[in-house]
Amino acid sequence: MKPEEFRRIGHEVVDWIADYRARVEEFPVRSQVEPGWVRGQLSALPERGEGFGPLLADLDRVVLPGTTHWQHPGFFAYFPSNASLPSVLGDLLSSGLGVQGMLWATSPAATEVEQHLMDELVTAMDLPRSFLGGGVIQDTASSAALVAVLAALHRSSGGTWRKSGVDGAETVYVSSQTHSSLERAARLAGLGERAVRAVPVSPSTLAMDAAALAERVRADVAAGRRPVLVCATVGTTGTGAVDPLREIADVCAEHGIWLHVDAAWAGPAALCPEFRDLFDGLERADSFTANAHKWMLTAFDLSLFWTAHPGVLVDALAILPEYLRNTATESGAVVDYRDWQIPLGRRFRALKLWSVLRWYGLEGVRAHLRGHVELAALLESWVGASEDWELVTPRTLSLVTIARRDGDDATRAAMDRVNGSGRAFVTHTAVDGRFAIRVAIGAEATREEHVRALWEALDA
Amino acid sequence: MKPEEFRRIGHEVVDWIADYRARVEEFPVRSQVEPGWVRGQLSALPERGEGFGPLLADLDRVVLPGTTHWQHPGFFAYFPSNASLPSVLGDLLSSGLGVQGMLWATSPAATEVEQHLMDELVTAMDLPRSFLGGGVIQDTASSAALVAVLAALHRSSGGTWRKSGVDGAETVYVSSQTHSSLERAARLAGLGERAVRAVPVSPSTLAMDAAALAERVRADVAAGRRPVLVCATVGTTGTGAVDPLREIADVCAEHGIWLHVDAAWAGPAALCPEFRDLFDGLERADSFTANAHKWMLTAFDLSLFWTAHPGVLVDALAILPEYLRNTATESGAVVDYRDWQIPLGRRFRALKLWSVLRWYGLEGVRAHLRGHVELAALLESWVGASEDWELVTPRTLSLVTIARRDGDDATRAAMDRVNGSGRAFVTHTAVDGRFAIRVAIGAEATREEHVRALWEALDA
Repeated sequence: MKPEEFRRIGHEVVDWIADYRARVEEFPVRSQVEPGWVRGQLSALPERGEGFGPLLADLDRVVLPGTTHWQHPGFFAYFPSNASLPSVLGDLLSSGLGVQGMLWATSPAATEVEQHLMDELVTAMDLPRSFLGGGVIQDTASSAALVAVLAALHRSSGGTWRKSGVDGAETVYVSSQTHSSLERAARLAGLGERAVRAVPVSPSTLAMDAAALAERVRADVAAGRRPVLVCATVGTTGTGAVDPLREIADVCAEHGIWLHVDAAWAGPAALCPEFRDLFDGLERADSFTANAHKWMLTAFDLSLFWTAHPGVLVDALAILPEYLRNTATESGAVVDYRDWQIPLGRRFRALKLWSVLRWYGLEGVRAHLRGHVELAALLESWVGASEDWELVTPRTLSLVTIARRDGDDATRAAMDRVNGSGRAFVTHTAVDGRFAIRVAIGAEATREEHVRALWEALDA
Repeated sequence: MKPEEFRRIGHEVVDWIADYRARVEEFPVRSQVEPGWVRGQLSALPERGEGFGPLLADLDRVVLPGTTHWQHPGFFAYFPSNASLPSVLGDLLSSGLGVQGMLWATSPAATEVEQHLMDELVTAMDLPRSFLGGGVIQDTASSAALVAVLAALHRSSGGTWRKSGVDGAETVYVSSQTHSSLERAARLAGLGERAVRAVPVSPSTLAMDAAALAERVRADVAAGRRPVLVCATVGTTGTGAVDPLREIADVCAEHGIWLHVDAAWAGPAALCPEFRDLFDGLERADSFTANAHKWMLTAFDLSLFWTAHPGVLVDALAILPEYLRNTATESGAVVDYRDWQIPLGRRFRALKLWSVLRWYGLEGVRAHLRGHVELAALLESWVGASEDWELVTPRTLSLVTIARRDGDDATRAAMDRVNGSGRAFVTHTAVDGRFAIRVAIGAEATREEHVRALWEALDA
């Protein structure tokens, strides 16, 4: 494809996306196709090129019916996956440049723009100064959790882990509400699920019980185990619970345990001073994750990760074969981000974050976050006034967890009815065995009318 | 950003990329900035949104000088990182749709288009039928190597690995030429570097010595170790060496070892019947990787991964918290790709691959590959006719490894001169201690004139 063809067809593709976004509300939020329907519509690969038109036609004919519309204003499922249009353009620029940022030398701007943004966000989010110079973009919070576990294993071993591997004495602490990626990270790191301790939570808030953590750690130490990492969460996936960072940090400090704070969803709220209480104690964390691709307007994938110990992380993950040696690396004056992550290669992901932060400005991003929190407070007030519904857990930010008072069957029926209508999409969780609907407000297009319509449909 | 703003600004961004690609040859291939220069040019994040113009201005002012131009026709370094313009548009569509493909249910088309393409490529590349239904897109070959190691550990343990972790008896086999990601995968999986055996290679071809592998495996088994995985490479990073798959497979079969074949760079050549000899024996592999984002016209990141044992892989990686449960998953009728990879979330990456395969057609992709191989053969002939230069190893496909006959200093000086000129960019490797220049031909824009200019500059 020649640049001039790209210019012409690229305009068509931009127009296709503009049209799609303008009419996204016309689609049922959740795809209504049956398993296998999409594949049944697809043709064999062509021997000869067929231009771009047939692909665009298939998008309309096959892909859109087979799509669950995450940018739909009626999307309240899982967590939001904001793909704002400035971030789409930033990502387009990244693809268009087509550079590899694995080493500083393979494209200096890819590394330095990322360093700049990660440090700027430390200030904007009022994060600990210890994170300055320790920021890196990961693909997802799952990968961020894995690199945190690996760095913690390395540090805990006194540096023998690289050579000798795990020794089977290591333990990792989560709560029953921690994201499954932590248990999975421990598994992938060779510890096995038996190394993972699920610490009990407060029955009312579902926050980790720091006293129970302390007890469990002491028992493990007494039994000859080596506590390596605690994951505390600000805003759990199920219900938005917030673990007590400060008390957890005390336990970690006593035993030299790495404290990883997972705020994959709630993290961007640190941009707003009025929400910073949620992060109290974060200055004692060893690492921290917040996903820009959830609620911070940035197209997937872009997970913000900071550590106070980049040297440990790099030492854990570094490898330097001859074909990657270069003068800049050997000078020690640059950061090579390939040593901070699982993959070797890297997209210039910082461009889409940069696009977001400059298009909206920090005030614009804050307004986006605040708007959703206000809508959630409104929903909370309606639920509070209802005779049939109740909050299952306290609201955190823009996540509201609700259930019918008359039992799980009624709650599930309401969810199925709403999801079947196509006008909204919610998902569920279990709270102490009770079936609960999670209303996660956060699509960029969501306005009060959409939350109201959801509530009316649920409460019908 | 409203859809109508996106339409207008999106056209400008497309035009910016078209202009950049049309004039990419005007830039020095390798960025000439000093460490810190880019950061020094950047401003604090704005409080208020500033539109898109300032970002585009900074691209011209700061990012382009700080960029190493991987799409430049004079780019012969590392391996190519093709970001063809149809793939750029496919990726733009993915960002524009903004869907999450972690589960089938979260966007059926994202899963089913991917399944379709991976199966279609089994036929087009004449891959083993055992890979049908076992294909998935990974971000990179590093991640693919890691999931292969994890699946192998799981199988080798008889299913106890998930719960109990590694036991310290596991061993992994590579050659001295295998990509560093394999050693790193073993480290990340908790085995430590001591578990990794670097099998000797043939001095002339740098291919793994299968007899030495057999001997090493027997010695390990006799010593009570448990061989878990062998990585064979088709087209090593250093010199393009091709390990003898069939003989290696014999060793693996005898001891129940997982055979992973890494063809990150050379893999796409399987599309051409005349290159299929390189893959002889692949039908006995347990897993296989080829990067579409290197030499197959697809913007980073998109690594093709197949396994003959998807059930083992999924069993190793699966985890199912309540908030991800859904009817489709429980029906067993669908594939949830989040269980096939390290991250949980997933972009709709298949769109950019689909765009490439439909725009070029299979014949177009083959022509792209063949053209580079022909250019490499031409360079090989010039080197062969030179009194000052020689091939250091046999050419594989489009990778030519050369050195001055009069020693490393002269070779290095030639490389530095060419790279300093800005008209071409090559990187190096070490072959048996000798400094060698790798000429990796594969940028989409590279023509005979560019290879000739490179040769004339080297041989000046």
